[in-house]
Amino acid sequence: MLKIAYDGSCFSGWQRQPDKRTVQGVLEEVLSEYTGVDVKLNGTSRTDAGVHALGQCASFKGDFRIPAENLKKAVNDRMGGGMNRKNPVGDCVILELDEVDPDFHARFDCKGKTYRYVINNRPERDIFRRNYCYWIPQRLDVSAMREAAEFIKGTHDFRAFQASGGNERETTVRTISALEVLDLRNEEGAGDVIIEVTGDGFLYNMVRIITGTLVEVGLGKREALSVKDTVESMDRTRAGHTAPAEGLYLKEIYF
Amino acid sequence: MLKIAYDGSCFSGWQRQPDKRTVQGVLEEVLSEYTGVDVKLNGTSRTDAGVHALGQCASFKGDFRIPAENLKKAVNDRMGGGMNRKNPVGDCVILELDEVDPDFHARFDCKGKTYRYVINNRPERDIFRRNYCYWIPQRLDVSAMREAAEFIKGTHDFRAFQASGGNERETTVRTISALEVLDLRNEEGAGDVIIEVTGDGFLYNMVRIITGTLVEVGLGKREALSVKDTVESMDRTRAGHTAPAEGLYLKEIYF
Repeated sequence: MLKIAYDGSCFSGWQRQPDKRTVQGVLEEVLSEYTGVDVKLNGTSRTDAGVHALGQCASFKGDFRIPAENLKKAVNDRMGGGMNRKNPVGDCVILELDEVDPDFHARFDCKGKTYRYVINNRPERDIFRRNYCYWIPQRLDVSAMREAAEFIKGTHDFRAFQASGGNERETTVRTISALEVLDLRNEEGAGDVIIEVTGDGFLYNMVRIITGTLVEVGLGKREALSVKDTVESMDRTRAGHTAPAEGLYLKEIYF
Repeated sequence: MLKIAYDGSCFSGWQRQPDKRTVQGVLEEVLSEYTGVDVKLNGTSRTDAGVHALGQCASFKGDFRIPAENLKKAVNDRMGGGMNRKNPVGDCVILELDEVDPDFHARFDCKGKTYRYVINNRPERDIFRRNYCYWIPQRLDVSAMREAAEFIKGTHDFRAFQASGGNERETTVRTISALEVLDLRNEEGAGDVIIEVTGDGFLYNMVRIITGTLVEVGLGKREALSVKDTVESMDRTRAGHTAPAEGLYLKEIYF
C-alpha cells in the first residue's frame, strides 16, 4: 500500500493513458523497474488533470524481496522526490509504503475521503500560485458560504452536483459528514478561503461543483438558502459552475 | 517603463533567444502586436533560466497612441495575467506601465537592486515548492550565517563571488548595503530561511554564490569567520557552491 503526494500541474491526471504523463503511469513504470514485477496499481481516486494530492492511496500485489522502506527510497530518488537533483521533475513523492494484508484494495476498501479546495481571494492575481488555487478577486462573503454549506451536509441524492462523463453509478446518494469553509484572509480581507469536505464517496466533479456553487453564494450571485432547493432539485443545471481543477487537493483517505 | 513579475520556472531566462521561450521574447511579441511598433525592451537585469522576479524593470521607446493603462490591461489579459482563463500560462504580469522621460533607460539608470533568496529548511521536501526554493533538509545555524554575512557587507572586490561566463566588466568592486538572513522557521525549526541582499550592482551569479557560501556556514561546513578570508582572497575556488536558480527572486530595482 502506498500513500502518495503529487503536484498535478504537469500530470494528465491519475489514470494511465497511452502517450500521456500520468501519476499511475510514472509510478507503475518506476515500481516495475525496481521490483522486477509488472506492477499494476489500484488507486483510490482517479484525480483529473491538474488536481493535486496530499494523500492519494494505491495498492498493488507482487512477489519480490525488497523491503518496503528501501523500495520507497529508491523510487523517490528516481522520481526526484529525494536529494537527487538530476531529475528535473520531482512532482510526485511516496510518503508511505507498507506491506499490508494481501486482500487489501485501495479503491474497494476506501470508507471515506477528505478533499481540500483552495481559493485565493485577493484583488491581484498571484502568478506563482496559478496552478495551485482558484483566484477570486471580488471579496467573498464567507458567512453566506457557511450558511449554504449546511444544506449540503448530510445524506442526499447529489445528482445536481454530478458532472456528466463520470462512471455510471448504481446510486448517486452520498453522505457528506463535514464541510468547512476556513477563512485565512488577513485584516485587509486578502488571502485564502479554504473549503474542506469529507464524505463516504464523491460523484464525478462533485467537490468542484460544490465549490463553484458556494463561490456563487459568496459573490452574492445566489442566496445561501437557495442551495437547499438546488440539492433537492437533483438537477445539474440548478447548481453552480465547476470550479477549476488547480484548486483541488485530495487530502486524506480513510479505510 | 515597465515593472514586471514573473515565475521563472517555464522561461529560459530573461534574454531573448531564438526558439526559446524567454520573458523578453514573450513581452516584446505581445507589446509589438498591440502597439504596432517593433518593441525592443531594455531589461534592468538579465535573469537566468529558473530565476523569478517580483519587480523586474524594462524600458522601450515607441511612438503610438495607446494610454499606458490600456496597454497594460491588454497585454496582461493576453498573457493570462488577467481574468482570461483561455491562456494556459499566465506566468508573467506587468505590475506597472508608465510613460517616462524619453532618456530613461532601465539598465543604465539603475542605481541598485534587492534580491531575495528563499531556502526551505525542513526534513521533508515540499514537492509543491520544488521550483520556488532551495530545499535544505539539515537544520541551518542562522546565527552563524548572520555572522558570516557581516564580512560580505560593504564595498569589496567581489571576484571570489563571480561565476565565469558573465560579461567582462571594468571593475569587480561592488557595494552591498544590506544583507539580512530572516528566520521564518516554526517552533520545530522547520520553515523558510530567507536571504535579502541589496547592492549597487551584482556580478554574474553573485547572489547565488553568496547564498551557497552562507548555506555552507549554516551547515557547519565552513566557519563564519573564514568568509572574511574568502572575500579577501578574490578567488572563486575559495567561495561556496552556486545555490540553485529556483530559490532566487529579483525583488526590487532602484533608480
